[in-house]
Amino acid sequence: MFQSFEVTARPEQGPPRLKALRGVMQAEGLDGFLVPRADAHQGEYVAPRDERLAWLTGFTGSAGFCAVLTEVAGVFIDGRYRTQVKAQVADVYTPVPWPDVTLGAWLQEQLPDGGVVGFDPWLHSAGQIAALRDTLEGSGIEMRVHDNLVDRIWEDQPQPPLGMVKEHALEFAGETHDDKRARLAEALREDGHAAALITLPDSLCWLLNIRGSDIPRNPVAHGFCILHDSGTVDLFMTEDKLIEVRDHLGEAVTVHPPDALIAALGALRGKVRVDRATVPYVLAELLGEQAAFDGDPCALPKARKNAAEIDGTAAVHLRDGAAVVELLAWLDAQPPGSLCETDVVTKLEGLRRNDNALQDISFETIAGTGPNGAIMHYRVTEETDSPLEDGQLIVLDSGGQYLDGTTDITRTIAIGAPPAEACAAFTRVLQGMIAMSRLRWPVGLAGRDIEAVGRVPLWLAGQDFDHGLGHGVGAYLSVHEGPQRLARTSHVPIEPGMILSNEPGYYREGAFGIRIENLIVAQEAAHKPGADAHRKMLDWRTLTFVPIDRRLIVADMLTKVERDWLNSYHAEVAEKIGPRLSSGAKTWLDAATAPL
Amino acid sequence: MFQSFEVTARPEQGPPRLKALRGVMQAEGLDGFLVPRADAHQGEYVAPRDERLAWLTGFTGSAGFCAVLTEVAGVFIDGRYRTQVKAQVADVYTPVPWPDVTLGAWLQEQLPDGGVVGFDPWLHSAGQIAALRDTLEGSGIEMRVHDNLVDRIWEDQPQPPLGMVKEHALEFAGETHDDKRARLAEALREDGHAAALITLPDSLCWLLNIRGSDIPRNPVAHGFCILHDSGTVDLFMTEDKLIEVRDHLGEAVTVHPPDALIAALGALRGKVRVDRATVPYVLAELLGEQAAFDGDPCALPKARKNAAEIDGTAAVHLRDGAAVVELLAWLDAQPPGSLCETDVVTKLEGLRRNDNALQDISFETIAGTGPNGAIMHYRVTEETDSPLEDGQLIVLDSGGQYLDGTTDITRTIAIGAPPAEACAAFTRVLQGMIAMSRLRWPVGLAGRDIEAVGRVPLWLAGQDFDHGLGHGVGAYLSVHEGPQRLARTSHVPIEPGMILSNEPGYYREGAFGIRIENLIVAQEAAHKPGADAHRKMLDWRTLTFVPIDRRLIVADMLTKVERDWLNSYHAEVAEKIGPRLSSGAKTWLDAATAPL
Repeated sequence: MFQSFEVTARPEQGPPRLKALRGVMQAEGLDGFLVPRADAHQGEYVAPRDERLAWLTGFTGSAGFCAVLTEVAGVFIDGRYRTQVKAQVADVYTPVPWPDVTLGAWLQEQLPDGGVVGFDPWLHSAGQIAALRDTLEGSGIEMRVHDNLVDRIWEDQPQPPLGMVKEHALEFAGETHDDKRARLAEALREDGHAAALITLPDSLCWLLNIRGSDIPRNPVAHGFCILHDSGTVDLFMTEDKLIEVRDHLGEAVTVHPPDALIAALGALRGKVRVDRATVPYVLAELLGEQAAFDGDPCALPKARKNAAEIDGTAAVHLRDGAAVVELLAWLDAQPPGSLCETDVVTKLEGLRRNDNALQDISFETIAGTGPNGAIMHYRVTEETDSPLEDGQLIVLDSGGQYLDGTTDITRTIAIGAPPAEACAAFTRVLQGMIAMSRLRWPVGLAGRDIEAVGRVPLWLAGQDFDHGLGHGVGAYLSVHEGPQRLARTSHVPIEPGMILSNEPGYYREGAFGIRIENLIVAQEAAHKPGADAHRKMLDWRTLTFVPIDRRLIVADMLTKVERDWLNSYHAEVAEKIGPRLSSGAKTWLDAATAPL
Repeated sequence: MFQSFEVTARPEQGPPRLKALRGVMQAEGLDGFLVPRADAHQGEYVAPRDERLAWLTGFTGSAGFCAVLTEVAGVFIDGRYRTQVKAQVADVYTPVPWPDVTLGAWLQEQLPDGGVVGFDPWLHSAGQIAALRDTLEGSGIEMRVHDNLVDRIWEDQPQPPLGMVKEHALEFAGETHDDKRARLAEALREDGHAAALITLPDSLCWLLNIRGSDIPRNPVAHGFCILHDSGTVDLFMTEDKLIEVRDHLGEAVTVHPPDALIAALGALRGKVRVDRATVPYVLAELLGEQAAFDGDPCALPKARKNAAEIDGTAAVHLRDGAAVVELLAWLDAQPPGSLCETDVVTKLEGLRRNDNALQDISFETIAGTGPNGAIMHYRVTEETDSPLEDGQLIVLDSGGQYLDGTTDITRTIAIGAPPAEACAAFTRVLQGMIAMSRLRWPVGLAGRDIEAVGRVPLWLAGQDFDHGLGHGVGAYLSVHEGPQRLARTSHVPIEPGMILSNEPGYYREGAFGIRIENLIVAQEAAHKPGADAHRKMLDWRTLTFVPIDRRLIVADMLTKVERDWLNSYHAEVAEKIGPRLSSGAKTWLDAATAPL
């Protein structure tokens, strides 16, 4: 079992650890110290050694940070975690609603007479520190580089991970790393850059066609690399991890121990391309004037999936979809009240494990029934585990990491007889999801330009949801992949090959949650008769094939076009997934996909 | 008659004038000189003396500029004017597609060895010059402040306008200028600004509740003013223009001759708020470090119309709507082929003139039949005037300036039997217009976030249009008013009271054009049962009431909701406009607004 239901937050450990931290702070002459939930690679999942925020405070969310001062310790958390944080941290910690309250403003309020705040320059990006220093200008507060004080007091801190690295087969990658390095090096030469420093593990893995096992859920290897404008690469990674891929990496990739990075950067001449938003502060400082803050050169090439990656992802969605349909058929056969959330998670992971290519789940399964469904990033634990009762909706958001691709799917299922207002909201969420699935739009638009399309049905009823409509998804890489997003904050044009989620939702606090999520891939739209001949347009190909609960749909609210889309989708689900099912599930699927 | 159909472009005058300009350029040691279509107030309409671009090149569009170099003279024009420019300028001028080709890039290509390019520092904003110098960095090209060389060679250049200024009555303005100055001064004090320099005539007129007559179509007075943090104003404007408003302006407003501005700016102490995008370069340079580039302080207060302005605008739309309905009824009674575009323009202006409050048309009426309708900013002249033939569509985009408000309305009308593909496109345009009219959205969104809603029906058919969905509209001020826009380029949140146009279109080059435009005003949406209690939402109130041509609607393409909206809108048109009509037009309206 990949997922655990263990309660990892122990609020009572917080106070003594905070006291110890303040002790070393004082000894070092610091008035504060920052403890982010981050490692040097700014990923969503971190290794146990980098769980400093959870170790110190008890808070286990995937984003946030603690600003420890002498008298107050603020835990900065976004809207997803405002309920969770209260249950996880002791009252020596003060939750701060972030980003409504910025760190800069909070520090100025808490340290009115100035002061020195230390930070670990590996755990903060150059962009973060620059922005923070900008807002602190004139306040008298100094941000000072320091070694990590949590590491000093954390006696049994785990070692850095040493997960084995494997080759990512060309059959799935679709392009050799020779070719990737060559075309990225050409782009560097065109821009007059001597090299690029790559600090994001998924970029590094994509570039070299390797996958790792340093952290859960994301099949990446921690390390850094320098791509030279010649196409050669210096890879900074513990050699022991690379035993199986020495031949695969070949002569153009030279392996160095991690601690050789600093000297190698110092020896570089000319401009070095680097992503300001994610490069550790310490490395950007080393580069100084040599840094060309033009973004991670792998980001867009990685986001634009090639034919092999799209074919792999499409194929894996059929196998993954069959596992989910088996789960749904099984779930429907259990009487209301007989199952708990953890039973559903366990059963689903078991069904996914029947696939030999499954390497991991792609994130902690969200299985929230009733009021738990309204907690957007709910992770069921032994403490919160709840029975699926008659009249409830369960939100089931899950995915798998397979050698040929990454999945992420949400379905909301009725347990017994659902309430009418939930059905109405479900139908609106579905209408938004259909509207985005059917969309065709002119080349060049970004997530911000089209995201509203998936929200309008809710808006018209005075409803909305507080997360983006969709995020990028990797190909056997991170389930949350940038830079493309279907969100108000995304100005990156959507291009053919980009895989995104399409996941509108609706959350009624204390009552129920709804989310419907398919993965979709952007493609050049086929020409339509009467269409503007000079106008290039894109549309989506749907990758996910799992039925949408017909019992939650108010059929009268759908237009003919929406109903046609749903019936056609369900027919395709039946055709593609049916042959992969047990006979019981096949019977269930035929009923679940009957025309509405 | 406000509108003229005169052909003002005389391409043959271009070459000798260009030669003369190059002569003085050479004498001054310049390798180039910029001739923008702009005055010191960056407005859409300019006084005859400021029509330097048209005088030099023959190009009469409302945006563009000429970069005159020794060997080449580039006329930079945007997508709206690429056809028009070819007909208006002689071949000594080279049309340059702008902004695809930027001035900076073009200069570097044309002046590879560097050079000195002169510009008039009153006609370019500080932001423009800063951006240009940024792109020219390292090129060796110098941008040099210079007196205006066109003024030197333009012997019969008209004098600056001296239009009389009138009071804008409190009944229409809704707030005294005392109150406006007081609340803006308070905002200045809060931001630590000693004063604001106001350079936009519509801001100045809004602030002081005055209207002018210096330029056609926009009832503004040219001038500058300084608003002090005490609430007093120094107004720089020729005294002769102000005879009628001395009492209205009162003691808190001190009038100075225009040429006193420079000295007054020099005497200011402390930070001076100014809009970088529109302040003349020369004034920003004078302010130097004192400039606080925080935008025009009147822009948002002016955009958020108060109750009197909204009531006035709503009232004027009924009178203006009645004039348009009379026109449509009359138009329908004429046999195909019997009218020309100019006949329609003349008749419409005559009908509008029946209203005593009409001060001007709000822009040159666009009346484009058949292929002319596909030219988005078509202005009919004696040369292009075309008969309205059977099977054509005519796009009729017009508006009036009334004491109580500004109108802007487009209807597309079938002449005889329209072609099927035009009806299908018309229906899609209508569906987009309805979708925006019906929209409800969460507070805080900008034009960019919601504009797609008005385009989706066209997109789904592979069609689109190349202008924004809508622009801000003033209250007896500019018909194009910022900063709010329904456009991909607008990041300004839409707020209650902002009036915008909602005008999707479709243009088939060489065949037909379609546009449907209503004005709408944003308002707080009424609570709906079941809506999220904590979520503030906005919606639109429609201001324009004129029927939409039912003969162009493919009824089967509409959803029930769309049809209901249209029938309800038409019922409201009949109710509000019917009683204001001649009996013939009333009979026509009843048929035109019958349920679909």
